Amino acid sequence: MENHHLGKHSFIFSEPPVIAAWASAAGKMESQGPLKDHFDITAQDAYFGQKTFEQGERKMQQLVLDALAVKAGKKAQELGVVLSGDLLNQCIGSSFTLRNRNIPHLGLYGACSTMAESLLVASMVVGGSFFESAVAMTSSHFASSERQYRFPLNYGGQRPPTAQRTVTGAGAAWITRKGSGPRIAGCTVGTVKDFGIKDANNMGPAMAPAAMDTLLRHFEDFSVDADAYDLIVTGDLGQLGKEVLIQLMSENGTPIGGKITDCGTLVFDPTKQDVHCGGSGCGCSAITLCGYLLNRLSRGELRKILFCGTGALLSPTSTQQGMPIPGVCHAVVIEGGNG
Amino acid sequence: MENHHLGKHSFIFSEPPVIAAWASAAGKMESQGPLKDHFDITAQDAYFGQKTFEQGERKMQQLVLDALAVKAGKKAQELGVVLSGDLLNQCIGSSFTLRNRNIPHLGLYGACSTMAESLLVASMVVGGSFFESAVAMTSSHFASSERQYRFPLNYGGQRPPTAQRTVTGAGAAWITRKGSGPRIAGCTVGTVKDFGIKDANNMGPAMAPAAMDTLLRHFEDFSVDADAYDLIVTGDLGQLGKEVLIQLMSENGTPIGGKITDCGTLVFDPTKQDVHCGGSGCGCSAITLCGYLLNRLSRGELRKILFCGTGALLSPTSTQQGMPIPGVCHAVVIEGGNG
Repeated sequence: MENHHLGKHSFIFSEPPVIAAWASAAGKMESQGPLKDHFDITAQDAYFGQKTFEQGERKMQQLVLDALAVKAGKKAQELGVVLSGDLLNQCIGSSFTLRNRNIPHLGLYGACSTMAESLLVASMVVGGSFFESAVAMTSSHFASSERQYRFPLNYGGQRPPTAQRTVTGAGAAWITRKGSGPRIAGCTVGTVKDFGIKDANNMGPAMAPAAMDTLLRHFEDFSVDADAYDLIVTGDLGQLGKEVLIQLMSENGTPIGGKITDCGTLVFDPTKQDVHCGGSGCGCSAITLCGYLLNRLSRGELRKILFCGTGALLSPTSTQQGMPIPGVCHAVVIEGGNG
Repeated sequence: MENHHLGKHSFIFSEPPVIAAWASAAGKMESQGPLKDHFDITAQDAYFGQKTFEQGERKMQQLVLDALAVKAGKKAQELGVVLSGDLLNQCIGSSFTLRNRNIPHLGLYGACSTMAESLLVASMVVGGSFFESAVAMTSSHFASSERQYRFPLNYGGQRPPTAQRTVTGAGAAWITRKGSGPRIAGCTVGTVKDFGIKDANNMGPAMAPAAMDTLLRHFEDFSVDADAYDLIVTGDLGQLGKEVLIQLMSENGTPIGGKITDCGTLVFDPTKQDVHCGGSGCGCSAITLCGYLLNRLSRGELRKILFCGTGALLSPTSTQQGMPIPGVCHAVVIEGGNG
């Protein structure tokens, strides 16, 4: 059987690519949260030894790439093409990570869906026999995001209850043709959905329609429903966005209530950590996947999950010009390892 | 024969994907330049009927996508997954183009290399049998770029002689498994090279080392030299960057002088148009490819070219923090059509 297109927006593999290694780095607050035992690298401040937040974010990606190479038993230059992107303007976190490393690089932009998007593209690179292996990687950083999208932290701005906290963290996964580990069975590419929400402090509900759209397309293309999965994991809808998605799916007659969780609600403990609606940012789903979720899949605690990265495709310019916040969601079917 | 990896950074196809249709849109000054007869859409101002430059850029991408659909004889939703990105922060030109169009979308960021990067990824999407067809698309806009990267135009800032003019233009190509037209025979994925140049008004020389790196890797991986091609077309090195590349290659003992041209030197007429070192921006190589070059390839005037998109991976933040300007270059082998 060849790789092939499935339905309108999906594809499956003749030989499912393997996620053979994964690594994550997390900031201080993330390292004190519920997933703390799953991170490879933790930091005590926002700088990772650098002079600026942006360079700290770049350093975090470098650390996670090097940790991934160690876990893969390779040099970083032997990991194959790196698919990566981040939230910083012009994705400088990713491009500066890779400068002068002699590693082939393709830059992606999917906002907070980047972990899922990079996994999806990496699985095509490997599953299509273009490279023997590839890396899917992304990062986000609370302090670099706040000053870029909202206000510098020094202003001490008040955050509304619907706001989420951008995760300081980076995750990377190594995808190979052969080997043992969880496998990528297929993917659904998202479309850009815009339901008219304009509040940049309420991004979960802005992304929920995109998540619903991708879930419905996925269910149709694969002829499945939520019962096909042990877990449907959305990217970073947060508490409110997750509730909106559950309600939208229920009203549509395709309930997912019992199966869904969201990385934004897993990464912090809302009873002890002051994060309003939960975590967000590319790093949110990246550190949840490249630790907690892949560890559980490889141990057989999860058999099959649908990993749905969600992204809000806004910029401060589009917001200032009164434009709404479009969302996108890419879905990746990950099956438990044989390792 | 299967698709396969070639050397360290390249791959070739068992069945070369076909560029079955292409379209371009150009701004006023570009429409008065040497390539004027090759554009599908031309504009008389910078707004394309919108209220802001950024929304004008988005409109330009929409127009070019719709023109591509007409030329492909399809509806836009039938063209397959769209691979696109642009220079605007968070790639809003691309994501707003696709909102609520029910078209699967993967966002890319390769700075001014995006036309080559999107062609490369689209060729993997189609050549790997994941979708029947895909669109590679990008845009840039002089006015939106100037105010984002440098100064608002209203300031009337003086531009140094090494500066290039960001092209106002968008290009799109439709890649299919079957059909007639120029074919993508193989690709070389670039690495991020940084030679320490920090002047954001001198980007050609900052990108030239990346172009040289990719050319040398390509020649090695494919066991060819410049003589294998009728033309080696770099993205937007401009006049100065092109001269630097020719000299670097010559000093390396791998001369390309007779074979090279650069989209930045093709798109404007320096004797009549005041553009300093030439054109730049994602749109520069996009409108040169998706008109002039693909027209010549399909008419048999060119037999085989190496299309090398070059990108400068800076952001205003990285420049303000004193960081240098890394470059990247992706190369795509395009063979003349059988149409």
